[in-house]
Amino acid sequence: MTQKDLSVIGACMQGAPAAVGDVLADVDTPALLIDLDAFEDNLARVHARILQAGLLVRPHGKAHKTPAIAHLQLAAGAHGICCQKVSEAEVFVQAGIKDVLITNQIVGTRKAARLAVLAGQAKIGVCVDHALQVEQIGHALRSQGTQLDVLVEIDIGHARCGVIDGDQALALAQAIAQYAPHLNFKGIHAFRGSAQHMRQPEQRAAAVTSAVEKVRSIVQQLEAADFACPVITGGGTGTYGYEADSALYTEVQPGSYALMDTDYAANKLEVGSAPLRHALFGLCTVISMQPGHAVLDGGLKAFAVDQGLPRIELPGWSVKTLSDEHTTIVPGPDAVPLQVGDKVRIIPSHCDPTVNLHDWLIAIRGDVVQQAWPVLARGALF
Amino acid sequence: MTQKDLSVIGACMQGAPAAVGDVLADVDTPALLIDLDAFEDNLARVHARILQAGLLVRPHGKAHKTPAIAHLQLAAGAHGICCQKVSEAEVFVQAGIKDVLITNQIVGTRKAARLAVLAGQAKIGVCVDHALQVEQIGHALRSQGTQLDVLVEIDIGHARCGVIDGDQALALAQAIAQYAPHLNFKGIHAFRGSAQHMRQPEQRAAAVTSAVEKVRSIVQQLEAADFACPVITGGGTGTYGYEADSALYTEVQPGSYALMDTDYAANKLEVGSAPLRHALFGLCTVISMQPGHAVLDGGLKAFAVDQGLPRIELPGWSVKTLSDEHTTIVPGPDAVPLQVGDKVRIIPSHCDPTVNLHDWLIAIRGDVVQQAWPVLARGALF
Repeated sequence: MTQKDLSVIGACMQGAPAAVGDVLADVDTPALLIDLDAFEDNLARVHARILQAGLLVRPHGKAHKTPAIAHLQLAAGAHGICCQKVSEAEVFVQAGIKDVLITNQIVGTRKAARLAVLAGQAKIGVCVDHALQVEQIGHALRSQGTQLDVLVEIDIGHARCGVIDGDQALALAQAIAQYAPHLNFKGIHAFRGSAQHMRQPEQRAAAVTSAVEKVRSIVQQLEAADFACPVITGGGTGTYGYEADSALYTEVQPGSYALMDTDYAANKLEVGSAPLRHALFGLCTVISMQPGHAVLDGGLKAFAVDQGLPRIELPGWSVKTLSDEHTTIVPGPDAVPLQVGDKVRIIPSHCDPTVNLHDWLIAIRGDVVQQAWPVLARGALF
Repeated sequence: MTQKDLSVIGACMQGAPAAVGDVLADVDTPALLIDLDAFEDNLARVHARILQAGLLVRPHGKAHKTPAIAHLQLAAGAHGICCQKVSEAEVFVQAGIKDVLITNQIVGTRKAARLAVLAGQAKIGVCVDHALQVEQIGHALRSQGTQLDVLVEIDIGHARCGVIDGDQALALAQAIAQYAPHLNFKGIHAFRGSAQHMRQPEQRAAAVTSAVEKVRSIVQQLEAADFACPVITGGGTGTYGYEADSALYTEVQPGSYALMDTDYAANKLEVGSAPLRHALFGLCTVISMQPGHAVLDGGLKAFAVDQGLPRIELPGWSVKTLSDEHTTIVPGPDAVPLQVGDKVRIIPSHCDPTVNLHDWLIAIRGDVVQQAWPVLARGALF
């Protein structure tokens, strides 16, 4: 398996469902739309909140997997992006993004080799929580002669990746130092996915407060051993305000904020806080109807359902069920009239895995297509 | 939007996670494996059951979206395949499949135009359940000068697409006849998705018996009006034996049988019937561990969860939760030892939407990679 084999790009992406200048009625379905007014508004508000607190914004590319969006986020004040996979980071780097943090652990010599090559093409960071990871990426970077920033991940309550205490963190910082200058310890990654969708703001605030205590204590232990932690990064769309005010985090990684979904919209907000706007919509065509139900031309292969059913934006109608390529909707007493051929909007329940089902995002302003953005990192699993 | 735009293929498919000759330890993760021994066994058994009853086998391509697999199904006795979308059918036709039935309704002039072109390249069939569909595809086929087989879909209990009685069916057959020879009425499509996973065989048998009664009565009404129904097609992996013995169906469309998943494996089988073999497996690497849990490098973007959690094939371990790119597993009292870097197998809970997340299927015999099959129709939504 040569490096060329590892990175070869095949040719089987679907053609776009719309072209610049099309009106919504012309967009083929099922498609994903980005409402540019809402998207730009979300970027402006969240970036301002974080930047005004003196932190850096590093939006998560896993939510959109689309270099065009990453470039807009950088233009709106972000200083780099996050990815979750080496192959995902490659796509963004190939599209001109020069600073990518992989917020994940890399295990496997093939991945380590790709990472080592990538580290020669842009400023790349990665997370570790186990000695084997340090060994594999250390060897690969040393062989390739490139350099990589490394963060130790701390488990702050998500019970997924991350070391659990300062002793484990220190051991890793020491292991990383064995590979200097190819591996450079830069600080801490602390992210709690389970905090993002806690419905009450007090719950989210408490989760971040508890995380900050734990991280601060570990940072002190590392600094006492001469391991400075210039980067303390994490957070997300549910908690970014708390990281911003933490006087500890240096950087926040909101992902879904740009697009939104019904799961995040279900969070209760802080007093005085306005909700982020839905910027991501599915567009479907009604293909069949009988008294009592109608059928849309997009289903499980267009809308992720891990956080429940998507929501239809059609007064009086609700989503009953999804199968592979169909969504069945049912009318309530105030259901607006509908007929075969009509186009309807859907709000996805979870934006990240929904976007990952599509090859294109159709950016609209009002009713007119402005751009067709290819989701170039779709399916980037390695 | 020109025809070229509609069919342009971009270049952003991920490189394959394995090459021919690799051993399993070398396969990058998360990947989907096809166990060729199990796959060939499933094909042989199901095809024999259907063919010996005198029916045709038309496997559903939506399960695998992979032309290489369709060619193997044809070599094993299938006479054509099914798809659910025009863009899906295009991929199979471009790869040399000459007979494709689109088991779905097509609404939208862009789709109708693509369908009309496709109908000039292979033997294509489509389903209808509403006059607008007939009008749109009729116009398109007439403009293009091509010919298409058309089946009227009957709702046999799934409450999704399909006409509900003989009068609706007859009206459609008459509408189709207005576009002869461009549209050719060929009979009936009758599929009940909700019957496939009824757990007790008696329930599935009763569902098919009831469907057959309804379809037979509608066929009689059509024949009395001089609309012959040479094709009566439907069925699936849960019910194919009943369609085979129905003395009504002429063709069966099993899809998941080739690959299997935990949802189908939960069906109780007919007395004397052996289960189909799991031929589809996820392969993941353990990237992180703490006492009490381990983390794999594939999550929601590698395994669909609409039918529940996937199942890990590791004695004593069970799947606790999935997030975008991680699966968290937890050990029971008899858990086998595990370490970071180990590779583990997962059985998906629903094969169709799981395969649709991947660009490659890695076909293995024993522990050795025989083929890397590109999932060329992945994401074919239009």
